[in-house]
Amino acid sequence: MGKNLTSRTEDYSKWYNELVVKADLAENSGVRGCMVIKPYGFAIWEKMQAALDKMFKETGHQNAYFPLFIPKSYLSKEASHVEGFAKECAVVTHYRLKNAEDGSGIVVDDEAKLEEELIVRPTSETIIWDTYRRWIQSYRDLPLLLNQWANVVRWEMRTRLFLRTAEFLWQEGHTAHATKEEAMEEAEMIMHLYAEFAENHMALPVIKGTKTESERFAGAEETFCIEALMQDGKALQAGTSHFLGQNFAKAFDVKFANKEGKQDYVWATSWGVSTRLMGALIMTHSDDNGLVLPPKLAPIQVVIVPIYKGTEQLDAIAEKIDSLVKALREKGITVKFDDRDTHKPGFKFNEYELKGVPIRLAVGQRDLENGTYELARRDTLEKQSVPAENVVTTIISLLEEIQANIYNKALQHREASTQSVDTYDEFKKMIDSKGGFIAAHWDGTAETEEKIQQETKATIRCIPINVEPEAGKCMVTGKPSPYRVLFAKAY
Amino acid sequence: MGKNLTSRTEDYSKWYNELVVKADLAENSGVRGCMVIKPYGFAIWEKMQAALDKMFKETGHQNAYFPLFIPKSYLSKEASHVEGFAKECAVVTHYRLKNAEDGSGIVVDDEAKLEEELIVRPTSETIIWDTYRRWIQSYRDLPLLLNQWANVVRWEMRTRLFLRTAEFLWQEGHTAHATKEEAMEEAEMIMHLYAEFAENHMALPVIKGTKTESERFAGAEETFCIEALMQDGKALQAGTSHFLGQNFAKAFDVKFANKEGKQDYVWATSWGVSTRLMGALIMTHSDDNGLVLPPKLAPIQVVIVPIYKGTEQLDAIAEKIDSLVKALREKGITVKFDDRDTHKPGFKFNEYELKGVPIRLAVGQRDLENGTYELARRDTLEKQSVPAENVVTTIISLLEEIQANIYNKALQHREASTQSVDTYDEFKKMIDSKGGFIAAHWDGTAETEEKIQQETKATIRCIPINVEPEAGKCMVTGKPSPYRVLFAKAY
Repeated sequence: MGKNLTSRTEDYSKWYNELVVKADLAENSGVRGCMVIKPYGFAIWEKMQAALDKMFKETGHQNAYFPLFIPKSYLSKEASHVEGFAKECAVVTHYRLKNAEDGSGIVVDDEAKLEEELIVRPTSETIIWDTYRRWIQSYRDLPLLLNQWANVVRWEMRTRLFLRTAEFLWQEGHTAHATKEEAMEEAEMIMHLYAEFAENHMALPVIKGTKTESERFAGAEETFCIEALMQDGKALQAGTSHFLGQNFAKAFDVKFANKEGKQDYVWATSWGVSTRLMGALIMTHSDDNGLVLPPKLAPIQVVIVPIYKGTEQLDAIAEKIDSLVKALREKGITVKFDDRDTHKPGFKFNEYELKGVPIRLAVGQRDLENGTYELARRDTLEKQSVPAENVVTTIISLLEEIQANIYNKALQHREASTQSVDTYDEFKKMIDSKGGFIAAHWDGTAETEEKIQQETKATIRCIPINVEPEAGKCMVTGKPSPYRVLFAKAY
Repeated sequence: MGKNLTSRTEDYSKWYNELVVKADLAENSGVRGCMVIKPYGFAIWEKMQAALDKMFKETGHQNAYFPLFIPKSYLSKEASHVEGFAKECAVVTHYRLKNAEDGSGIVVDDEAKLEEELIVRPTSETIIWDTYRRWIQSYRDLPLLLNQWANVVRWEMRTRLFLRTAEFLWQEGHTAHATKEEAMEEAEMIMHLYAEFAENHMALPVIKGTKTESERFAGAEETFCIEALMQDGKALQAGTSHFLGQNFAKAFDVKFANKEGKQDYVWATSWGVSTRLMGALIMTHSDDNGLVLPPKLAPIQVVIVPIYKGTEQLDAIAEKIDSLVKALREKGITVKFDDRDTHKPGFKFNEYELKGVPIRLAVGQRDLENGTYELARRDTLEKQSVPAENVVTTIISLLEEIQANIYNKALQHREASTQSVDTYDEFKKMIDSKGGFIAAHWDGTAETEEKIQQETKATIRCIPINVEPEAGKCMVTGKPSPYRVLFAKAY
C-alpha cells in the first residue's frame, strides 16, 4: 500500500483531505456536503461518544431524544436565535412523491404540501424548550439535565470532511435550572468537562475561555469554549457551552413555581461537541506518514504482523501469538493479528502507519528463535526488539507513554505558536506568516473586532478564563484595554 | 401519584397510550407524528442498543454512518423498492429561509430551490449501495458487514407512540457478499440473532419465519422475520432480515472480480429493528398497575424506599442502606435509593410500580430493629420479608427469576392464543373473538391472501421456519396446501 500522501509543508489542506480518505475515515457522498463516515472513522467517533457519555452521566445528565424536524414558526420565537439559524437550512415542504404522469419517474406530489414547512434541526433549543414547557411546573422538576446524540443539518456552502459538513453528528446538552447561578455553574462545568475530555482522551491541549459578544451562540448570554491550535497555526473551536439566561424560557413561556410559590422563568444552558472533533484529532497529531492516534481512542491499539514464508512458519507464529493476544485482551487492550495472506508485510506496515495504530509488533522466524518481538511505535516511528516475557508490560507502559507524548508535543507546538504582540503591524505580519495564537489588546468593541477580521481574517478566539489583568491599549484604536484577548485565524 | 390507568380489558389501546405517557417513556411532540423519547424510555432503548450492538460486533459487523438525505433519483433505481418507499416521505425542496419582505416573519427563499429534491431516508439501501459501488472491486473487499444506528422518516398518516411514528430510531444492517449462499446465511443468522435478543433480553417469545411475497420488503427476494404476540391477541413484527439477491447491486452497478477474475454482481442483505421494539416490550409484559420490565433492560433494577419520620430516622436508614447499595452495585445491579423528602412512601410505591422497577425494597424503623427488608417483586406484586444478611443473594436470584417468569408467562399466553383452524368460517369467528395466531392452510396465492385480509383484516404473519409438512386444503379456495401458515391481525 503506497501512501502517496501530500506532505504537510507542501499543502496542509490537501494533506488533510487526502489523509481523511486514505486512512478510511470518511468520504464525500453523492449528496452535496454530506459525508459517509467509514467504519474505521466511526469506530474512533464511537470511542469519543462512549467516553463523553460516561462523563455526562457521571455528572447527573440523562439522554433523551427529540424530533428531527422543527416547525418553521418555532425558529422565529427567540429573536437572536432566528437571526443565527433560520438561514441556510434544509426545508421540508412536501410529504409525498408520486409517479410522474408522463412516466418519466417520480415527482413531488404538489397536493401533499405541508401547511407549515419543517426545518431539519440545525440545533434543538426551540423544539426542546417547547417540550420543557410541558415538563416544568415547579422547582421540584428542576434541574432538568438532558443530552441527546443526534444528527443536525446546516446548509454550508463550502464543506470539508468532518470540519464543516451539511449534516454532522453531535451531542447537544440542554439543561434547565431554577437560578441564574446554577445555570452559569452548569455551563462552566461543561466547559471544564470538555477540556478534560479533549486533554485526557484526545491528547488535545485546549484553552478555556469565553467568547466575545459577536462570536457568541445565537441566543446565548455567555458562551464558554475550548480552543485548540492545529499544526498549521490555525485555531479550531472544539466545543462550546452556552449560558442562555432566560431567553428561551421567555420565548417558549417556560415558568416554574419556586419554593415560595412565586412564578419565575427558567434558566437555561446548552452545549455541544460534534464530529468536528474528528478533524481536530486528525490535524493535531498526524504526520506525513499518516494518522497518529491517541491510544485511548485508537480502534486498534496494537497490531501484530507475522513475517513468514509458507503456512508452516505462519502456523508456528500464530500459535505463539495466540497467548499474547489473549494476555493483551485480558488487560483491556484492543489487538489485531493480521494474518491475511493476500498482502505482504511491507504493505501492512504502511497501512497501519497510515491508519495510526499506536503500536505495531512484527514477528518472524528469527524472533521466534530469539524469543523476541520487533516493536514499533507510531508516534516517533522508533523500533526496538523486546523479549517476549516483557512484551505485555512494555506495551502497557508504552501506550501510556504515547498518549502523554503526543499531548506534550501538541502542547509544545501550541506554546511555541502563541505570541504576545503590541502593534497592529506586528499582528498583521504574524498572522500572515506563522499564524498561531496571538495575545493582543483590544478595545472591547464589535467594530474593532470586525475591522480586524475584515483586514486579517483573524478573529478573537476567546478571552481565556485565567487571563491576567494587564492595562494596555487596543492595538488598533489605542483605546484602553484591561487584558489581552486571544486572536487567530480559525477553521 | 395516582395511576388512574385505564385497564386492559376496558380499552387495551387506551391503556397502552396512557401507560407510555404516564410511565415517562415518550410523548407526542409539537411536530405531527414525531415523538419525544423521554429519559426513562430512552434509558431502556439504550440498553437494547447496547445488547444488540455487542451481538452485531461479536458476529463481525462494524458500525458506520451514511447521509440522512437521499437524492430523489436514487429511489427510482430499484424498481420494486421505489414502489414501496417513494410514497409517503419527507421531501426537502429548499435550502434557505429569509425574512419576509412584509416583516411577517421568516419564509422559504424561493431562490434557494434544490435542483434535485432530497428525501429524508425512509431506509438506506439506495444511498448505501451507491457508496458500496466505490468500495467493492474484488472478492477481497467482501464480505462487507456494516450497520448503522440512525433516525428514519416515513410519513405515516396514523401514528402511535413507538409503534408507528413519522420519525423513529433504528439500526439498519447492510451487508455485501460474494455468493448467494453466504448472503442467505447472513440474513438467516440475523433472524436468529434477533430472536435470541428478543427472548433473552426482552423476555419476548417470538416465532421465526419467512414472509409471503406480498409481505416482503420492497426489493427483497426473501424476508425473514420474528413475530410476537401481544396480550390483546394481535401480532407485532419485531424484526426483519432481508435477502436482497443482486437487486441493489444491479440497480447501482456494484460488481466485483471473483477469485477467477470474473466480474459478477454482489449479493446483499439488509435487516433492522427499531424503537417499535419498545412498543412490543411494553405491550407484552405490562399490567393494569403499569409497566413490567425485564430486569435485563430495566434502567433501575432495584429501588429502595425509606419509611421514616424525621431526619434522625432517615439518617439511620441511609447509613444502613449505604453498604447495601455498594454491595448491589458491585454485583452490577442498578439500584436507586429514593430519599426524596418531597413525596410520601405510598406515592413512591405507586410511581415505581407504574415504571416497572423489578424489585422494590422498603425499610422502616421496625425493619432496622429486626434486621430485615420488605421486598416486593413487580411481576407478581408479591411481598416478603428478607433478613438483611440474605438480601443481596435473594435479589440476584430474584432478578433472574423475574426475567424467566415474565418470559414464561408471555410464552404461555402465546401458546394459549395459538390455534389451528380448518374452515374459513371458524377462522373468521376466531379472528373476531379472541384473535391470536391462527395456523391455517392457504393456497399460496396473493389473491387469496388479499381476500382474507380484505374480509378479516388478518394477514399472514409468516411461514414458520420449523413448519411441519402437512398436506391440506386452502380454507378459502380448497386448493392444495403443503403446510399451515400463521395468520393474525397485526400492529
